[in-house]
Amino acid sequence: MTDIIMKDYTLGIDIGGTHTAMAVVDTEGNILCRATIKTTDFATFPKFVDGAAKALKKSVKEAGVDFRNVRSIGIGAPCVNVDTGMVEGAVDLPWPSPIPLKDDFSEKFGLPVGVANDANAAALGEMFYGECAHTDDFIMITLGTGVGSAIVTDGNLLQGRKGFAGELGHTFSRRHHDRLCSCGRYGCLETYCSARGVVKTALDFLDTPRHSSLKQIDPAKLTAKDVYMAAEAGDEVALATLRLTGEVLGEACADFAAFSSPETIVLFGGVANAFPYFIDSMKEAFERNLLWIYKDSIRIVKSGLPESDAALLGAAAVGRSAFLRQRKENRQI
Amino acid sequence: MTDIIMKDYTLGIDIGGTHTAMAVVDTEGNILCRATIKTTDFATFPKFVDGAAKALKKSVKEAGVDFRNVRSIGIGAPCVNVDTGMVEGAVDLPWPSPIPLKDDFSEKFGLPVGVANDANAAALGEMFYGECAHTDDFIMITLGTGVGSAIVTDGNLLQGRKGFAGELGHTFSRRHHDRLCSCGRYGCLETYCSARGVVKTALDFLDTPRHSSLKQIDPAKLTAKDVYMAAEAGDEVALATLRLTGEVLGEACADFAAFSSPETIVLFGGVANAFPYFIDSMKEAFERNLLWIYKDSIRIVKSGLPESDAALLGAAAVGRSAFLRQRKENRQI
Repeated sequence: MTDIIMKDYTLGIDIGGTHTAMAVVDTEGNILCRATIKTTDFATFPKFVDGAAKALKKSVKEAGVDFRNVRSIGIGAPCVNVDTGMVEGAVDLPWPSPIPLKDDFSEKFGLPVGVANDANAAALGEMFYGECAHTDDFIMITLGTGVGSAIVTDGNLLQGRKGFAGELGHTFSRRHHDRLCSCGRYGCLETYCSARGVVKTALDFLDTPRHSSLKQIDPAKLTAKDVYMAAEAGDEVALATLRLTGEVLGEACADFAAFSSPETIVLFGGVANAFPYFIDSMKEAFERNLLWIYKDSIRIVKSGLPESDAALLGAAAVGRSAFLRQRKENRQI
Repeated sequence: MTDIIMKDYTLGIDIGGTHTAMAVVDTEGNILCRATIKTTDFATFPKFVDGAAKALKKSVKEAGVDFRNVRSIGIGAPCVNVDTGMVEGAVDLPWPSPIPLKDDFSEKFGLPVGVANDANAAALGEMFYGECAHTDDFIMITLGTGVGSAIVTDGNLLQGRKGFAGELGHTFSRRHHDRLCSCGRYGCLETYCSARGVVKTALDFLDTPRHSSLKQIDPAKLTAKDVYMAAEAGDEVALATLRLTGEVLGEACADFAAFSSPETIVLFGGVANAFPYFIDSMKEAFERNLLWIYKDSIRIVKSGLPESDAALLGAAAVGRSAFLRQRKENRQI
């Protein structure tokens, strides 16, 4: 009986420009049921909230969960101002800003709602359900199309003014360099360690007489995954590319360590799949560049969260965090 | 009557290798009475606590304060582990580690005791009494013999594992460079923006045919203060030195912004006195290197705390913070 009463569930919502993924998640981070709606199908945000509510209620039922045991909702979305719970200036979403994300979902469901930038949500997932559970101080670096990051210190996600903290992909790896970044500047970490950065490094290396299976691929179509697969097959250019990726990342992470003194650096995203091929050079560059007080004390790991579910689990973690906070506050009154 | 009851005071203690400064501080950050004892006069730490207690009680009396209105003690010391309240491995202090700083003072006085690394204490002083009062997100950079820093995010001092966060003086300004840092590495921010760094830059510039009043000073004896004074007199080499100092600092701070999204960057320490001579080049380099989401929104200011009192006020702030935390917890029970 106690068991049934103690059960609680969170609804995770990951709002993207095209699709919105939703899930019913238990306290261990298991996804019990999923749903997807098309974000662009809804002309206004209130209509979207109605549509999401309908899909979520159906999912809760399908999961065999009593709706009374759903305790919270967590939402990851682009450009969330965590102070106001509003989305501000998200060009990817089809509705005008500001969007009252937190208030409207809270009103619709009568439940505690937590919101986070989608880039930060995965870190909260990591903290609740992943490699960094029980770790108070870590930095999560997402090596995807770009390089994102989220910093957890003293058990809290570092937000900063407007929740804009943790843009580590846009710190300078190579000052006064010629690699143009998506942000318009040159030499950002992202220009080396994102999927695009890996391709750029490979193309630089291919522009030499070296033999490589990658030369058979149209340079305009080369992907980081091609580089990773070539590395798996022992291709020297691909291996050198990933070694340099690791070296640049290790150097940058040594600076990041001096900022927040993390216990762990956790790597996530598509490029992190090449972990076995860049971790040695990364660790070597990391330790070589670390200030002595941090040496040999910081773990570097690959995230254990399933990539396809991380955003959803992250959103759920944000919701669960809001629920736990509210419960704590209620007890203190 | 209420007024008298509401009055509260904090004892600030700044433990240095040679001297320990102490003060009775009111809630506005006014120092009512000071005392100094010689740290090295005490053979054991318990004897030091006794000596400090005696001097503090005398100060409280001299300040005309009823001891019952002293609510807390704040202590700044080197190498404090904030989790345990112990000093661990401070080579500058005359007693063997670990030193039970928090417990022994707490037992002696029966008051809440807050402890902090001396490098962080000034930031807490800034947050309670200085330029950054009411600012939740700021970075304080101390430009002294070395370059120290303390990061406040969401109203809390960022501590990280072992309280080792905020070593921004030891992030790389110039990778693969030849300037040796006190930490044993090359190219740290400190090698440019500390007092020693300023002297190094000036010596580099003086090693040219340029005219400068600084050439009259023995290079082995040149100080950052000489450079500052020459800049005040319009010396071109001194002005160029401080411009470069500002440029390097501005570039570095643009990266720091991407970490914690601060509202303010506050500069402190001896070199900050040359603020008027480096702030233009610093701001220019800062804005030029900032990621667009931060542009034109972060203040750079010089600390308003009197330099000689900052460590003491910082210690007092740590104490006051401990008192407020305990009061809040008591109310919640």
